[in-house]
Amino acid sequence: MSDLLWQKPGVQVDAQIQAFLAGDDVLLDREFFLQDIAASRAHAQGLAKIDMLTTEELAGLERELTVLAEDFKSGTFVLDERFEDGHSAIEARLTERLGDAGRRIHAGRSRNDQVLVATRLWLKDKLATVQALCREVAGIALDRAQAESALPMPGYTHLQRAVVSSAGMWWAGWAEAFIDNAQRAADTRAWVDANPLGTAAGYGVNLPLDRAHTTQALGFARMQVSPLYAQLSRGKFELAALEALGSAMLDLRRLAWDLSVFTTAEYGFVRLPAQYTTGSSIMPNKRNPDVVELMRGTYASVAAARSEIEHLLSLPGGYHRDLQITKGALFHGFGKGLAALALLPDLLRNLDWNVERMRDALEPSMYATDLAVDLARQGVPFRDAYKQAADPAKWAEGDPAASLSARVSPGAAGDMKLDELRKRLG
Amino acid sequence: MSDLLWQKPGVQVDAQIQAFLAGDDVLLDREFFLQDIAASRAHAQGLAKIDMLTTEELAGLERELTVLAEDFKSGTFVLDERFEDGHSAIEARLTERLGDAGRRIHAGRSRNDQVLVATRLWLKDKLATVQALCREVAGIALDRAQAESALPMPGYTHLQRAVVSSAGMWWAGWAEAFIDNAQRAADTRAWVDANPLGTAAGYGVNLPLDRAHTTQALGFARMQVSPLYAQLSRGKFELAALEALGSAMLDLRRLAWDLSVFTTAEYGFVRLPAQYTTGSSIMPNKRNPDVVELMRGTYASVAAARSEIEHLLSLPGGYHRDLQITKGALFHGFGKGLAALALLPDLLRNLDWNVERMRDALEPSMYATDLAVDLARQGVPFRDAYKQAADPAKWAEGDPAASLSARVSPGAAGDMKLDELRKRLG
Amino acid sequence: MSDLLWQKPGVQVDAQIQAFLAGDDVLLDREFFLQDIAASRAHAQGLAKIDMLTTEELAGLERELTVLAEDFKSGTFVLDERFEDGHSAIEARLTERLGDAGRRIHAGRSRNDQVLVATRLWLKDKLATVQALCREVAGIALDRAQAESALPMPGYTHLQRAVVSSAGMWWAGWAEAFIDNAQRAADTRAWVDANPLGTAAGYGVNLPLDRAHTTQALGFARMQVSPLYAQLSRGKFELAALEALGSAMLDLRRLAWDLSVFTTAEYGFVRLPAQYTTGSSIMPNKRNPDVVELMRGTYASVAAARSEIEHLLSLPGGYHRDLQITKGALFHGFGKGLAALALLPDLLRNLDWNVERMRDALEPSMYATDLAVDLARQGVPFRDAYKQAADPAKWAEGDPAASLSARVSPGAAGDMKLDELRKRLG
Amino acid sequence: MSDLLWQKPGVQVDAQIQAFLAGDDVLLDREFFLQDIAASRAHAQGLAKIDMLTTEELAGLERELTVLAEDFKSGTFVLDERFEDGHSAIEARLTERLGDAGRRIHAGRSRNDQVLVATRLWLKDKLATVQALCREVAGIALDRAQAESALPMPGYTHLQRAVVSSAGMWWAGWAEAFIDNAQRAADTRAWVDANPLGTAAGYGVNLPLDRAHTTQALGFARMQVSPLYAQLSRGKFELAALEALGSAMLDLRRLAWDLSVFTTAEYGFVRLPAQYTTGSSIMPNKRNPDVVELMRGTYASVAAARSEIEHLLSLPGGYHRDLQITKGALFHGFGKGLAALALLPDLLRNLDWNVERMRDALEPSMYATDLAVDLARQGVPFRDAYKQAADPAKWAEGDPAASLSARVSPGAAGDMKLDELRKRLG
Repeated sequence: MSDLLWQKPGVQVDAQIQAFLAGDDVLLDREFFLQDIAASRAHAQGLAKIDMLTTEELAGLERELTVLAEDFKSGTFVLDERFEDGHSAIEARLTERLGDAGRRIHAGRSRNDQVLVATRLWLKDKLATVQALCREVAGIALDRAQAESALPMPGYTHLQRAVVSSAGMWWAGWAEAFIDNAQRAADTRAWVDANPLGTAAGYGVNLPLDRAHTTQALGFARMQVSPLYAQLSRGKFELAALEALGSAMLDLRRLAWDLSVFTTAEYGFVRLPAQYTTGSSIMPNKRNPDVVELMRGTYASVAAARSEIEHLLSLPGGYHRDLQITKGALFHGFGKGLAALALLPDLLRNLDWNVERMRDALEPSMYATDLAVDLARQGVPFRDAYKQAADPAKWAEGDPAASLSARVSPGAAGDMKLDELRKRLG
Repeated sequence: MSDLLWQKPGVQVDAQIQAFLAGDDVLLDREFFLQDIAASRAHAQGLAKIDMLTTEELAGLERELTVLAEDFKSGTFVLDERFEDGHSAIEARLTERLGDAGRRIHAGRSRNDQVLVATRLWLKDKLATVQALCREVAGIALDRAQAESALPMPGYTHLQRAVVSSAGMWWAGWAEAFIDNAQRAADTRAWVDANPLGTAAGYGVNLPLDRAHTTQALGFARMQVSPLYAQLSRGKFELAALEALGSAMLDLRRLAWDLSVFTTAEYGFVRLPAQYTTGSSIMPNKRNPDVVELMRGTYASVAAARSEIEHLLSLPGGYHRDLQITKGALFHGFGKGLAALALLPDLLRNLDWNVERMRDALEPSMYATDLAVDLARQGVPFRDAYKQAADPAKWAEGDPAASLSARVSPGAAGDMKLDELRKRLG
Repeated sequence: MSDLLWQKPGVQVDAQIQAFLAGDDVLLDREFFLQDIAASRAHAQGLAKIDMLTTEELAGLERELTVLAEDFKSGTFVLDERFEDGHSAIEARLTERLGDAGRRIHAGRSRNDQVLVATRLWLKDKLATVQALCREVAGIALDRAQAESALPMPGYTHLQRAVVSSAGMWWAGWAEAFIDNAQRAADTRAWVDANPLGTAAGYGVNLPLDRAHTTQALGFARMQVSPLYAQLSRGKFELAALEALGSAMLDLRRLAWDLSVFTTAEYGFVRLPAQYTTGSSIMPNKRNPDVVELMRGTYASVAAARSEIEHLLSLPGGYHRDLQITKGALFHGFGKGLAALALLPDLLRNLDWNVERMRDALEPSMYATDLAVDLARQGVPFRDAYKQAADPAKWAEGDPAASLSARVSPGAAGDMKLDELRKRLG
Repeated sequence: MSDLLWQKPGVQVDAQIQAFLAGDDVLLDREFFLQDIAASRAHAQGLAKIDMLTTEELAGLERELTVLAEDFKSGTFVLDERFEDGHSAIEARLTERLGDAGRRIHAGRSRNDQVLVATRLWLKDKLATVQALCREVAGIALDRAQAESALPMPGYTHLQRAVVSSAGMWWAGWAEAFIDNAQRAADTRAWVDANPLGTAAGYGVNLPLDRAHTTQALGFARMQVSPLYAQLSRGKFELAALEALGSAMLDLRRLAWDLSVFTTAEYGFVRLPAQYTTGSSIMPNKRNPDVVELMRGTYASVAAARSEIEHLLSLPGGYHRDLQITKGALFHGFGKGLAALALLPDLLRNLDWNVERMRDALEPSMYATDLAVDLARQGVPFRDAYKQAADPAKWAEGDPAASLSARVSPGAAGDMKLDELRKRLG
């Protein structure tokens, strides 16, 4: 049974109710326990600056927080159901080791701003990871776009054969997509980069807390000024972070769809390395692209996390316990989403085209659009050119290289401008 | 590292990929491990009936399945990461104990129909629980509706004081709501009550499996005939079950909202027993209705589960690995939802009105509608009566009992007809 | 500017606010104007029964309501922005034609129960349509399942070739799916089949309204007893109806996905009649399966409608203006969903297989599972049989007919039992 | 019947199918018809630059596009069902007026990039509006925060009375919230500020289109380089825009909740001007805060739009007709969302506190936290101080001004730092 620091004496606690209140909170708190410790350190420093802690007390607290972090990382300290949550675990440990100094550290803060600041640090970290992974993906895609710019590949719309395209064009599409996704992760990170510590339960506290210090010590770009807004940002910032992740996951879902189609026997454009496939329990002949399918499916987990938080936020201002549920949702969404995204760079590096199958899929009709445009260029009004080119009798085997070159070579409309993309990637 | 029964030899398995594929699948499988065992027993019996197992082999399998179920329940057997999933755990155990008989049990089935049948049994069980809890809630509400039919309480629309109501009317509303919710759980349970075992990977199998036997042995109302439909129902049935649960949760959310408002200092209509409230880490004066708020918030978890599954189902027919993600979502939604719903009966039993505060909140304007209707009854066209009754000068302290009686007594429009509701409750 | 029946005199009305409040409400009300008129007739009859209207007044009201319905259907009467909403339009027309009798009709009812009853009648009608369309689809699928039971077709899992299947099996899957969908629409219709008229604004009214009469006159199966529950069911019943529709749309989405894949050049299993395809504005060679894609996409509109309503329902009990937004969402979801579903029967009737392409897609590996099962039948433990059959050297061109027959012929596990399905279809 | 520019001759068009394909597309196109015209002008200029149009043809096209825009704005030209969509309406008009020049304008572009560029321009415009409205709201909130910094108001958590706060703190919370919302709208606008015109159907076109010219002429910050990515951004950018709007709507929902609670008889903190309230059709005594409730509910419409688009994007790369559904969803979300947001500035300007009711709601327990912190400041370890201050015997009427001043005055933790916020507002 957990240690209820702020339970009133004499209150009968029903076990089922207690279990409902606790949920899996303390296990979830493992996820940002190190951030909670870091923020506790900054808070203690701030208390010392306004003489709420002596130099010795601060030294003791900093030392024990360092030890606790090490113990946690090494597994010597396990955060589990013995504690109500991670926050009480820290306080309990400090009190056990340091006596009154431990009892002093919660002065001027509330579990509310403690959760907020730990979550904020965690979000910044995860958004940096999203950005880094998206940049990595974009880099690989750019390299392969350059290398495979002339490798012919059918271009589809509506899953129907449309015009000649190239593997290079395909890669360039994902490159620009993930450059945008990286940019969005960075924008979102900057947007949430504000320190809520010191706002207490949403109405500030009657102490001259040195918020500038904790802001700087924890590496925040700015202070979240208003205590009420600190509370209003609970869930709101989590949503924004999930939306930034979701942007990358949307593209991952479409990319995985492409691979799912391209790995069918009927298309046969892509061969996946064996470790990306699995067998069937009953069909000995199967090698299924399970990794690609789970990548595609993972969007659902990010969307669900977003949905879970969104449904909680129909509330008046101020803290309400409903908001606790945001935590599990956030960790679920990022946990699943980042696991999928992290596999993408290697998958793309290892992706192996079946060049013959791609070339075989080019057919005369796919040059009809080029023909219509050529006629237009020669002066036939486009609507008339279009009608002429619609006649199958006019269709003939074309030259993929010429078709491609006219569309995407430098100076053409489709000029891949890889240098420009590379510049945006930075 | 898990035991990969159907992994091809020579395939290099990357640990990160493997971890991604596995997810927390094996831990989730604890949730329906007993159902998986029960279905394995029925499948073994069916195999024996078509001479794919000898009588002795069947006896051995049945014995070991019983032992495994006992070991699992007692904690002697722990389902954990040593296994790829619960299904392979069963097969591995049977093979370890029984040799070839264990290797025979998977004949004629696929992990696909194994997951389907275990999930189906689990869904039926959980929907029965939803139904039972809703019936219990409705019963309590009916009893209190009868007992408190004459206890005056303000009736609100738009959170604004409207007309005189009674605690009895309030209870009767929730009673009818939860009768409907129980009905829906029952309807949904009947709708999903079809046996998918024997459909293999979605295309049947070249064995004369005795599907009638497994259907009867597992207590299903009917067979799910089409193997392709068995696959199409993955996720679809889970959604329907979550929607039935969601219907009850919607009402729970609104009920919790009422209690959240009624327990404010400003309303003060309801006193919650102390165990339903918790303190603040920084504000010594607080007793917050956390249980009620978490109940309210739990709708979000059920909605998220639904959303997660819904996003997975944009797929062609047949099984795809994306569908594996349905499992965690389903367990999340029902786990959180049932935990909240299970606390409701006691909360309602213990709910304590502050009769004085409720009476104090009645004010003269709340009789204006009665007045308008009385005028209409005396022959004034309603639109004119309405205008007359809108004049505050006409408003005077009324008699709550008379107002109530005219509206909800037997024969009046609002006659609570508790007997009729009780009859529907059965 | 609309006619504000219940606006207080002297209130300055800001045009922008007024436009926001009105939204497109009056246009939406066209959708259930006839239901509103029908319920008004029943309400008037009820008022006459308790002597709130004379026989002559009732006769006048019934006559004018009939005329109004005719005028609306013929386009003589247009429901537009001249009116605040459909409800005031009815009242205004009756008052204009009949004077005081028109002013009397709103006695004992509120716009709240007026909206509820019109919506309820509308829902019952639309759910009946869903049921009928699903039954029609199932009937076609059953007929084609029977006719094409022996037409070989590749069976896929993960979009990968798995085993030999047949067009008949494919059709049987959709048949059972739509039988279930029809059942669910019927269950949901029965579940919402309760009369809310007479519950006024959620607290009844001080008149002995003859609710049994209106219940019977409007064809409801039962009365919605509690006035508070009538309010609580706003949105809840709409959600249930959208979920029943959504169940059919889920299957339509997967069916459309199959067709989208089957109509690619690479699969080439299906030829769509020309009217189901459209051209491109720039590519003269394209015929795209736009109808199938819009059918697939329409699930999103039903899901969005559901989501819009779901987000509104985080509220205390009683009516709140937020709930008005449910109306547009409901009409959007059913409007789009039924339009897509209504095209399905003809599409399925006209669906034309390319038998050669289907047969060409069968390959030796697709008999491996049959082989493993055959070995198991001969006594090889299944896990060993599986390993033997995984050897490509063992794979040889098989006989599709024999493979199919062993799996789905009567008595086999996959026996399509079309008679049983036909019995459920009724 | 619409004019099908690219329909093949001889294709039998079924009216029901045609209606399904068309939907309300042409009516929706009114929303961005002017943007479509602007982009057509830039495209024509580009064609002239590569000699695909003569100077005279360009002059004619520019003149007629100007006339068309004027005719549309004045109502002389009505975009309706006579046309398949807005794009064909432009082409038809130009061809009617200019003959071959009109037939030439579609050279090098597809409806795909035409929709993309019109949507992009529209999104930029709407995001600028979101930003401007959020800035306006923040400005008002800042002004009132300054003016009412010392006006005591109860601070709530869990809707329970917590500590003394002030109207100024309340306003400052919304100020910072809407500064962030404005920032996010600006970030998102910058993120989508890329020109897709010239990417044709997703694979470029065999013409040296002057994309730099159209980018500059249409005021885009950069080119969207990859044709495939232009297609992938369909829906993705719409989602991002709706999410930025949604961020503001989330705060609006919580603000509306505050007002909904504050306008109850029980709280009574806020008086709404009469034009923000409406009456009841049956209860003459009611003035309901309908505007505030609809504002709150409007979040659902934005969420639904997001959901509708999100559900469409589970697709392989390239254009699919499903994506057409994004358009209606986008317009629905922004239409409803901006209408609600646009009312907020005036509502906030006119908001009128009931100062006495707010002061009456302050009670002795609300000083307990101050007391605990004061004790901590005097050296009592916080956990001990907390226990002492939890004793109701210690609670006494405090001084709201002193309490506030200790928490939020300059230098205190809660220092509102309005200047800093004003600086961010710019």
